Amino acid sequence: MSLEQLYVKMALHAWESHIKRTDALFSSLTDEQLLQEVSPGRNRAIYLLGHLTAVHDSMCGILGLGERRYPQLDVIFLSSPDKAGPEMPPIKELRQYWSEANSRLADHFAKLPHPEWFQKHMSMSEEDFAKEPHRNKLSVLLNRTNHLAYHFGQLVLLKK
Amino acid sequence: MSLEQLYVKMALHAWESHIKRTDALFSSLTDEQLLQEVSPGRNRAIYLLGHLTAVHDSMCGILGLGERRYPQLDVIFLSSPDKAGPEMPPIKELRQYWSEANSRLADHFAKLPHPEWFQKHMSMSEEDFAKEPHRNKLSVLLNRTNHLAYHFGQLVLLKK
Repeated sequence: MSLEQLYVKMALHAWESHIKRTDALFSSLTDEQLLQEVSPGRNRAIYLLGHLTAVHDSMCGILGLGERRYPQLDVIFLSSPDKAGPEMPPIKELRQYWSEANSRLADHFAKLPHPEWFQKHMSMSEEDFAKEPHRNKLSVLLNRTNHLAYHFGQLVLLKK
Repeated sequence: MSLEQLYVKMALHAWESHIKRTDALFSSLTDEQLLQEVSPGRNRAIYLLGHLTAVHDSMCGILGLGERRYPQLDVIFLSSPDKAGPEMPPIKELRQYWSEANSRLADHFAKLPHPEWFQKHMSMSEEDFAKEPHRNKLSVLLNRTNHLAYHFGQLVLLKK
């Protein structure tokens, strides 16, 4: 196994294991539990479901993997805090978007040639990348894995 | 920059940025706030401070960087849940251990030759490592960064 393959494998392994455990948690929460706040006065689980879906969906764009599917989520789940944005889609649809966004990423990741992970991502100029080659597509994956772990840590607070 | 250097830089960058923001958060919390639960009935911030310190201190061992300094924390913060273990050290000492454990790791990481990050960690047999070379020292760093992000996500719930 080349170093490149090894590193991609390590990063994907971390991503997949966090997707798996967060997905299991969302599946175990009832619709009523999704409407609960993770801590008094803080985000509801449903907001975090939409927020993570919007962030994962937007990874298609930043990684150059194709059009994103749910840009309409951004105004609700990225640019507005919970309980302040436009009306949310029905919970059932949100659950479906979450699954589909992650499945699409998994398909893209399986097909992406290893060297491409080390190329610049789409929100960066050629000039900046020449100076900071560690800010590549794989670094986006590492960051998003940490972002997922961060919110997963909040979501587990709802487990009985 | 070699690929090896690049990977190590990416992983260390993520680790350091999470240490920095968690450290800033602990510093901003008063001793009284440290005694609060992150959500009703859940861990108190002081428990997470000790828990993260014990985990980071034990990284010296698993990464083969030398003797760990605070093994006495394990029985309180790893093998017992909050409010069930032996008495905790004073908050002031815990804050100091947290800083020192992270400083020691930073010193070790700065000196570790890049190729060593791709060697097996200490909790793994040669035989298993031959089969799963992605379970190396760098993977421990990636995992512990996610672990830190997970608890950081809980600790921010205490911010006013």
